[in-house]
Amino acid sequence: MVRVIKAPEVRYAELLDCAQRLFFVHGYDNTTVNDIIHEAGLSKGAFYHYFDSKSALLEALAVRMARDSMTELQPILDDPELDAISRLNALFAGSRRYNIEYAPQIRKTFEVIFRPENIVLFHRMDQAVTAVVTPALAKILRQGAEQGVFDVPDPIAFAEMLLQFRLSLATMMNDALQQAKAGNVDAAAEALAERMRLYGLAIDRVLKLPDGTIEVAEKGFAYALISEQ
Amino acid sequence: MVRVIKAPEVRYAELLDCAQRLFFVHGYDNTTVNDIIHEAGLSKGAFYHYFDSKSALLEALAVRMARDSMTELQPILDDPELDAISRLNALFAGSRRYNIEYAPQIRKTFEVIFRPENIVLFHRMDQAVTAVVTPALAKILRQGAEQGVFDVPDPIAFAEMLLQFRLSLATMMNDALQQAKAGNVDAAAEALAERMRLYGLAIDRVLKLPDGTIEVAEKGFAYALISEQ
Repeated sequence: MVRVIKAPEVRYAELLDCAQRLFFVHGYDNTTVNDIIHEAGLSKGAFYHYFDSKSALLEALAVRMARDSMTELQPILDDPELDAISRLNALFAGSRRYNIEYAPQIRKTFEVIFRPENIVLFHRMDQAVTAVVTPALAKILRQGAEQGVFDVPDPIAFAEMLLQFRLSLATMMNDALQQAKAGNVDAAAEALAERMRLYGLAIDRVLKLPDGTIEVAEKGFAYALISEQ
Repeated sequence: MVRVIKAPEVRYAELLDCAQRLFFVHGYDNTTVNDIIHEAGLSKGAFYHYFDSKSALLEALAVRMARDSMTELQPILDDPELDAISRLNALFAGSRRYNIEYAPQIRKTFEVIFRPENIVLFHRMDQAVTAVVTPALAKILRQGAEQGVFDVPDPIAFAEMLLQFRLSLATMMNDALQQAKAGNVDAAAEALAERMRLYGLAIDRVLKLPDGTIEVAEKGFAYALISEQ
């Protein structure tokens, strides 16, 4: 047997890829560390060199997803033509495209992290995502404050508060997924969409913009996110 | 030995009292379930009849504290003379008085729940407090909307969002307590007070009130909360 020598970051990425594939086919609970190392062709020792546990790996997957989505959104962050309001709206629109594209994976991730026994994982993943998103959001808020379109005395504090805000969507998202599974997709999508509208309203107001300026979700987004087809 | 028969709710309250006393004298970590049952004169079986664990007891203490503080604030909630803005400001003022009165206990509770290994406990306590406070806050928001002083399309959703907001203070509070312990009380109090001011600003804006209408903290509150004397 020829032993292939790979760089640690390649092995790390491959482990994440294998695990992601298995989680999405068999579910997180039905996938063991043994399944992952078998699929990746690695020893248990190698796995534990990279990750303390299966949940640490899931957290790393979330970080990678957050980083990937920020990379995909980078052109919006860098576009010199956009004013701060357009940039923020473009960021939400880009984030929605990303969410729709990966909707099945996102739903499967939510199914795992919303379980009561996974509350630690949920908050570790949230902290990881927040760490990736806060500086980007703070930069947009700073730009808007400089342009005089946002009233933001402290961009970092406001970015943290607005991101904290979004967690009030998590409970709604969980309820919507449960309801959708029970067959009430339309009612669940409507309730979730309404809460996203209120979240947008709260952002408008905190930034002292007219109601309806920031569009967190357009019509049909909540439905596309929670619906299985 | 005479066995005293007590009603379950009396025993429950006594267990909480004993545990609270021991936690505040010796600290949560240094108090065992054995210490608590010894102090309360109960068997281990009796303890586990009421609580699954020591952390379940701490959570029950937090619920009791939240309920007690709401009971203490009930006259403000019921006062027919107050308009919605005055009621909300009176609620924050009352909550500050309560926090200052119990500052040593609150600091000790925070010391426990802010530890990384206690993140589950932190969120269970937060959910318990949120469940107690949300209906009261929603009622004030509804009153304000009816009086035309708040612009609140959905009182319950807005109450949930505003309470979610306050969690962005938790990290600051933790940092401030750590800094205060390291001797930087003034700097820590100033940073915490500034974040509380921004939290008040966010509330003003979400309710469409002029900046500075809702006073989350007056001068000196953050200092009194974190300072040991």
